[in-house]
Amino acid sequence: MPREKAAAIASLRALLKPRSIAVIGASRRQGTIGNKLFHNILHQEFNGVVYPVNPNAEVVASVKAYPSVLDIPGEVDLAVVIVPAEIAQQVVEQCGRKGVRGIVVISAGFAESGAEGIDRQERLLEIARSYGMRLVGPNCMGIINTNPQVNMNATFSSIFPPAGNIALGTQSGALGLAILEYARSLNIGLSTFVSLGNRADVSSNDLLQYWEEDSATDVILLYLESFGNPRKFARIARSITPTKPIVAVKSGRTTAGSRAAASHTGAMATAEVASEALFTQAGIIRVDTLEELFDVANLLSHQPIPSGRRVAILTNGGGPGILTADACVTRGLELPALSDKTLSELKDFLPRRASLNNPIDMTAEATAEEYSRALKLLAQDDRIDIVIVIFIPPILTQPEAIAGSIRELAPQFRQRGKTLVASFMGWRGASTELGSAGGHVPCFIFPEDTAVVLAKACEYSEWLKRPKGIIPEIGGVDKKKAEQLVKSALERSAARPLWLDTTSVIGLLSSYGIRVVQSKSAATAREAEKAAEELGFPVAVKLLSSTITHKTEVGGVILDLSSQREVEHAFSQIREHLVSIGREDEMQGVTVQEMISGGIEVIVGVTQDPSLGPLILFGLGGIYTELFKDITFRIHPLTDVDAREMVRSVKAYQLLEGWRGAKPCDTEALEELLLRVSAMVEDLPQIAELDLNPVKVLERNNGYVVVDARVMLS
Amino acid sequence: MPREKAAAIASLRALLKPRSIAVIGASRRQGTIGNKLFHNILHQEFNGVVYPVNPNAEVVASVKAYPSVLDIPGEVDLAVVIVPAEIAQQVVEQCGRKGVRGIVVISAGFAESGAEGIDRQERLLEIARSYGMRLVGPNCMGIINTNPQVNMNATFSSIFPPAGNIALGTQSGALGLAILEYARSLNIGLSTFVSLGNRADVSSNDLLQYWEEDSATDVILLYLESFGNPRKFARIARSITPTKPIVAVKSGRTTAGSRAAASHTGAMATAEVASEALFTQAGIIRVDTLEELFDVANLLSHQPIPSGRRVAILTNGGGPGILTADACVTRGLELPALSDKTLSELKDFLPRRASLNNPIDMTAEATAEEYSRALKLLAQDDRIDIVIVIFIPPILTQPEAIAGSIRELAPQFRQRGKTLVASFMGWRGASTELGSAGGHVPCFIFPEDTAVVLAKACEYSEWLKRPKGIIPEIGGVDKKKAEQLVKSALERSAARPLWLDTTSVIGLLSSYGIRVVQSKSAATAREAEKAAEELGFPVAVKLLSSTITHKTEVGGVILDLSSQREVEHAFSQIREHLVSIGREDEMQGVTVQEMISGGIEVIVGVTQDPSLGPLILFGLGGIYTELFKDITFRIHPLTDVDAREMVRSVKAYQLLEGWRGAKPCDTEALEELLLRVSAMVEDLPQIAELDLNPVKVLERNNGYVVVDARVMLS
Repeated sequence: MPREKAAAIASLRALLKPRSIAVIGASRRQGTIGNKLFHNILHQEFNGVVYPVNPNAEVVASVKAYPSVLDIPGEVDLAVVIVPAEIAQQVVEQCGRKGVRGIVVISAGFAESGAEGIDRQERLLEIARSYGMRLVGPNCMGIINTNPQVNMNATFSSIFPPAGNIALGTQSGALGLAILEYARSLNIGLSTFVSLGNRADVSSNDLLQYWEEDSATDVILLYLESFGNPRKFARIARSITPTKPIVAVKSGRTTAGSRAAASHTGAMATAEVASEALFTQAGIIRVDTLEELFDVANLLSHQPIPSGRRVAILTNGGGPGILTADACVTRGLELPALSDKTLSELKDFLPRRASLNNPIDMTAEATAEEYSRALKLLAQDDRIDIVIVIFIPPILTQPEAIAGSIRELAPQFRQRGKTLVASFMGWRGASTELGSAGGHVPCFIFPEDTAVVLAKACEYSEWLKRPKGIIPEIGGVDKKKAEQLVKSALERSAARPLWLDTTSVIGLLSSYGIRVVQSKSAATAREAEKAAEELGFPVAVKLLSSTITHKTEVGGVILDLSSQREVEHAFSQIREHLVSIGREDEMQGVTVQEMISGGIEVIVGVTQDPSLGPLILFGLGGIYTELFKDITFRIHPLTDVDAREMVRSVKAYQLLEGWRGAKPCDTEALEELLLRVSAMVEDLPQIAELDLNPVKVLERNNGYVVVDARVMLS
Repeated sequence: MPREKAAAIASLRALLKPRSIAVIGASRRQGTIGNKLFHNILHQEFNGVVYPVNPNAEVVASVKAYPSVLDIPGEVDLAVVIVPAEIAQQVVEQCGRKGVRGIVVISAGFAESGAEGIDRQERLLEIARSYGMRLVGPNCMGIINTNPQVNMNATFSSIFPPAGNIALGTQSGALGLAILEYARSLNIGLSTFVSLGNRADVSSNDLLQYWEEDSATDVILLYLESFGNPRKFARIARSITPTKPIVAVKSGRTTAGSRAAASHTGAMATAEVASEALFTQAGIIRVDTLEELFDVANLLSHQPIPSGRRVAILTNGGGPGILTADACVTRGLELPALSDKTLSELKDFLPRRASLNNPIDMTAEATAEEYSRALKLLAQDDRIDIVIVIFIPPILTQPEAIAGSIRELAPQFRQRGKTLVASFMGWRGASTELGSAGGHVPCFIFPEDTAVVLAKACEYSEWLKRPKGIIPEIGGVDKKKAEQLVKSALERSAARPLWLDTTSVIGLLSSYGIRVVQSKSAATAREAEKAAEELGFPVAVKLLSSTITHKTEVGGVILDLSSQREVEHAFSQIREHLVSIGREDEMQGVTVQEMISGGIEVIVGVTQDPSLGPLILFGLGGIYTELFKDITFRIHPLTDVDAREMVRSVKAYQLLEGWRGAKPCDTEALEELLLRVSAMVEDLPQIAELDLNPVKVLERNNGYVVVDARVMLS
């Protein structure tokens, strides 16, 4: 481990595993947050010593208080500060002098509350740093460590979650309490809880590094509203997810809106798309709601990650079985037939009325004994990766007995790497019963909910199995020429951003070995006719304009012209249309292109995310691009695996594979195109936006042709 | 009301509002289901008299039993039968002789358990009918009426839900108990509950008619596994939904699978698609899960149906506010800016840190007073139809006070027809607090869940506002000619199903005023060249075959041929491809067609659902049809409103409207085409399947042209 990282982790350990705490308040009154927090630490029987500090009160929660942290006789590892923002600096300064190692600032009134607060926060941070102290908050709700050797509830919530292997970091303090309450009600065990507040110092990146090494933590949950440093976040997360799953809910999915749309790619690249790409590439499990956050955590914290998508459903009621099957199939899980052995043995003891198709409906009369026998068979059936057990308590059966059977057999499933979940509809005791020792089978109120969670876990499992990929060396690149081309374009014009002219675009793409359709510019109809003659018919004629982005929308694209007369006519038609909308001044002429017949139209694009850098787009091209948004984004640079996966992750891949009898397309060449674009973006940071749309992908071994391209420099 | 319906309702009333009940068991043992059921009726203090009947036990649940129903001294309205299936007939016969009016048969061992059981059930039904008795079940879990004047728990579950205005019918007995437990835990009030079991007599259709007239019921919930008589169900439901919402969860969404794919339309018309069309056209609110079933019911039972999609979110925590906003936007709800008045008055009392963009984040310090003032403003803001209040209990505020404010203001929202929902994250008392007298504000654990429910309610609201439409008279139809054409085709060939030859297809469509592309058949290359000459270039050449459905897949469609030589070449190319796959025998020649340039490709189709009759399809046409499945189905016959809505409900409508600068298409002509197809299907029941694909929709006022068509007769 690099020394810097080791030091960071050690400093967080002092915060999260202190042996001595000072709780520093300033209020005269009892019953304030400070007193409450001190009380919570006492009440939870913190495994160490806690000192109340208050210059204005002699006693805090029945304990004699120290006037200042400097008056405390022993060492202090951690100080929790709950004083008015105005005096926080002075208190933190005293902590520094005392030799405190970590500080949690609960107080509000900092960066969240305007310019004055921002200043205050910066000064606070300076003081902390000058003494080498780490700082959580300000404006947070505190930290928890459930490790019995620590047993610390340094929050103002009296809720202490059960000990477990899930770590939770939250950016919303307000949400923290609700989260703790929910975790307790579902009997979900946490290792540590950190309310990050304003993240003046300690960030989610720091926590990730700490939890990566924390032996008490197996699953990491994050509630995020923004990324502090997204590139660093992506890098750290990517190094952790292969060993510990990270589950995150990030808000702001739809509200971010799209950017000003200079290109197709730009128009479709919302901030949301960038986060999505970041999560995908880092192997982070993204969930949409807080409920899913906990449901997924609950599954991953004790069950094996699914080894495949094949589900068996075991139920004593047909209806819920079918609803669950529906939910599974909708989310891409499979319900295969069971093995012959399983089927024949199930027949031996289940009544004739039972249905042995998957879902296995044992009917309402099913006993604990039958559940047990059926589960034993499923644990051994190699056709199955996941089992969902549904139990609807009928009146004369005791759910405890069924829960007992499931708990007993849970280890057999775990041994064979199979994932086991349950839903005991209507019986609220089930979570506790199934969650207890040896069982650790997550239990859901509604069986349909299992499908969402299992599908997320399967995605993660597939990510784990995927080769990590390399950024391959790309041959046939004339980097010098490309740099020169960009440089001279920027020198020729002062406009920023600057759209490259057609000739330069072709030159640029060609110097990266990207195949572009043959074309010629023409300022007049006569020139266009001549160009067509030289290229050979049929040709396409397209508006040449440095200001009009969407040519189709102004009638600027006319295809499939077979004669000089048609070319001449097309030229006038384009001009007349521009005249009719009063934009004829923007026409510099036309581009005459060879027509590429056949091929599937795709789009490849680049845009810049303000914090993540270049994003690369792939998807269905042509006029359907923005209608169906059958697209995917990745963050630059692309590995070979990224490129392969991008091509395969859109619906249009079915077209490329040879849709309805058509011959398959050259997807290999397409992957190479993506990698070439990534290489180009690497070399030429001046490229702000790029649209290759459409790219026509031809039959296998015939490559592709870029039919239209636009490049914007900044 | 028709006399028949009135009689049916009266007979159900005897079942659901009896004044006297006999519980008929036959077990010697105590503690059986029969005893339990009798005990439940007593325990709930049934408002009438209940008699235990048992030939084998003197005392049932401490009450002296009658040996048979005939021994009961007074009248008996309802008999609940829990005897072995073998003696059920005899018991029901006795009930008939006694003059019992309704019977609930709990016993299993009937149609659900094989051939013998089916016979048994039929005989049971005959006996009941011969005495004019209505019968619920067999194989059910009983019935409940919470009306204080009845107070009947005739089920074997001891759970009695709170009284309320939601009626619930369930086809899955097993699920019944879980449902009751869940309703109670959420404090959701029911009016009546009926477990339908095998539906030998009383069906969901009967219940719908009863609940339509039942003054205690405002919202109807159904859990369905199948439709008894779907056409009747659709008719009845359609007459109820304008006054009382019906919310249904139907299982089997994905498992039904698609049919053998003779046509595009057939391939895409799953059983699921048929139910979906039925629900859409009848205005039934369809939900996917049991959780949603109750969530939607909870909203509709006490809140006004949303008058629009404009939502305001009021919160004391930013994170949950944004997550909820995300969920709303994803589901098509809107978050408009608030009115200037609201904004300026909010500014008056909220702290500077508060965010007044929608969501309105009042920050963690928000008091009950502030909630109250903000809600008052929102109740008066005309820009808002729906308000979601989120409250995350911070440590020093009492959630009760906030709940009190919301409850107090609920009537102001109701008065103005605004919908109000809440989420008190982590505080489980909220449901009860907000649900109580005067409030009736549904409360969700997670605020994101409100979005799903509100979106469903908005869809229903929009359905209510929609004109009901008429089935218009269609002019320009030569019905005689079409009938003759179909008749003679069926006479000419014995094959069933029978694909109509191209000439007949064109004749058929033309006689319904449907515009088909000009074309000619040709058996040889020479004939094809001649046909092309006559039609005028460019032309398309397509395989002519009565057995090959998907011509594109066998290379059987070649477009845009400009010369005789190209036509000749196309002919050989098609033949050679068939030779290469060994299907040359299936080629009868080619069809030569005029080329239609421009236009948007759509598909219009017909297929038959085994129980719902003809289904009509509309969607994006051409090669993308099955890839994107951007399609919609309706059940025949179509009204003008159905046709209008079909065209508008697919994404491809944006293409038709003039996508990216293109001229808008003739959607009026397209709607007429759908109505003509519906008229044709009405007149000619022999049409089993029909694909018009592609139909090219031209610019406004230029109509459409059917480019390719296939018709299958049965």
